Amino acid sequence: MTNYKIVVQYDGTRYNGWQKQGNTKNTIQEKFEDILFKMTDKKTEIFASGRTDAGVHAWGQVANFKIDCDMPCDEVFEYLNNYLPEDIAVISVEKAEDRFHSRLNATSKTYEYRMTYKKPDVFKRKYIYTVEKKPDIDLMKKGAEILTGTYDFKGFSSLGRTKKSTIRTINFIDIEDDFGVIKIRINGSGFLYNMVRIIAGTLYDIGTGKKDIEDIKKALESKSREFAGTTFPARGLALVEVKYDFL
Amino acid sequence: MTNYKIVVQYDGTRYNGWQKQGNTKNTIQEKFEDILFKMTDKKTEIFASGRTDAGVHAWGQVANFKIDCDMPCDEVFEYLNNYLPEDIAVISVEKAEDRFHSRLNATSKTYEYRMTYKKPDVFKRKYIYTVEKKPDIDLMKKGAEILTGTYDFKGFSSLGRTKKSTIRTINFIDIEDDFGVIKIRINGSGFLYNMVRIIAGTLYDIGTGKKDIEDIKKALESKSREFAGTTFPARGLALVEVKYDFL
Repeated sequence: MTNYKIVVQYDGTRYNGWQKQGNTKNTIQEKFEDILFKMTDKKTEIFASGRTDAGVHAWGQVANFKIDCDMPCDEVFEYLNNYLPEDIAVISVEKAEDRFHSRLNATSKTYEYRMTYKKPDVFKRKYIYTVEKKPDIDLMKKGAEILTGTYDFKGFSSLGRTKKSTIRTINFIDIEDDFGVIKIRINGSGFLYNMVRIIAGTLYDIGTGKKDIEDIKKALESKSREFAGTTFPARGLALVEVKYDFL
Repeated sequence: MTNYKIVVQYDGTRYNGWQKQGNTKNTIQEKFEDILFKMTDKKTEIFASGRTDAGVHAWGQVANFKIDCDMPCDEVFEYLNNYLPEDIAVISVEKAEDRFHSRLNATSKTYEYRMTYKKPDVFKRKYIYTVEKKPDIDLMKKGAEILTGTYDFKGFSSLGRTKKSTIRTINFIDIEDDFGVIKIRINGSGFLYNMVRIIAGTLYDIGTGKKDIEDIKKALESKSREFAGTTFPARGLALVEVKYDFL
């Protein structure tokens, strides 16, 4: 068996996220597995670094799959891209160690949330969320500082009750105003369901005075969803990069 | 009457071009005139530097219109952008001299045609045409050199018989291979119907050996459509910039 590690880009607009779940149709995973079946004549599972939600984009999602035949990487690359729809593309293909797993071995992930208080560039409108007013970037940065570190982020997720740990580490949150497009770049060990979109909504609320720093502290301490801000829409979110210790 | 000069961006994918013509519905002109009617309560005509065909994009189309009320430019800007759909945007609004006309006073226009021999970036796929093979850029540049200058470009247009002059001047054609995306940037005094798309198709044919330099010369000399290459699709074309001697 050869284990292939691939980097994938997708425009998530018309998909129900990466992961096949129950009766969820039209997922990116499904598109890949259909092609892998065609390629190998065998049911082949593909694993991603994490599921992205419906409508979320990826500039550098990482996935892996194992197949019997030892095909050259450039042939796998050509084959996949040839059959993938035009809103999904494979950026690179490498052979990985047998024990490599895109989700289990990921050490950090970077997401970017984009919002604008102007009318967005017509060519990028599907990747930017339009907000009502211009937030104060310095206030947003203060909020981001409070969130940086290792905390129980349960108050920043849409999960119901769970037995799994909700402790995560945020390594950094960079915020810049790029000619009217506010880009929030978050790097961390991993993220809970809707966590980045809730952080984006919360920082915007902080920047517009609807919430203050105390609300962030309360959300962290109470672990209750009621103190953080709204969950911002999927269209503004992209998985930028996934890092690994090995390979 | 105040004459407003505006710069407009649009994703042409879902429009039948700029210009209203007979029963042509869903044009960009129509979108503007509907909003201008709402704004002024009067039927107001808007003039663009030129019509762009169905599916062609614009990064910097220029248009002008005259209205009775002397509204500040930033109010016009806000009003138009507020009502325009998300695939059309006004980039700037200025007051122009009364005699300024966006089409009649244009001194040069720049278009860019984008094609790729790779799978295009999923986020830019609607603005790049995918070709079958990698053309030879040096051959394309030789073809471009022949086309630069003042000629009768009738052989590079889809016009039928016309009494209007088909003589145009191409000031420069720049071609670069930007990581697999070939960008042909053409600047000239003006362009005939489909002229840029036929030049793009012809240069690709030259670069892949399907046509040679002699065919370009024949197309120019004979003024007959049969010698130039195919008309490339609208999706790869964008009107980049329009220049004027005076505002």
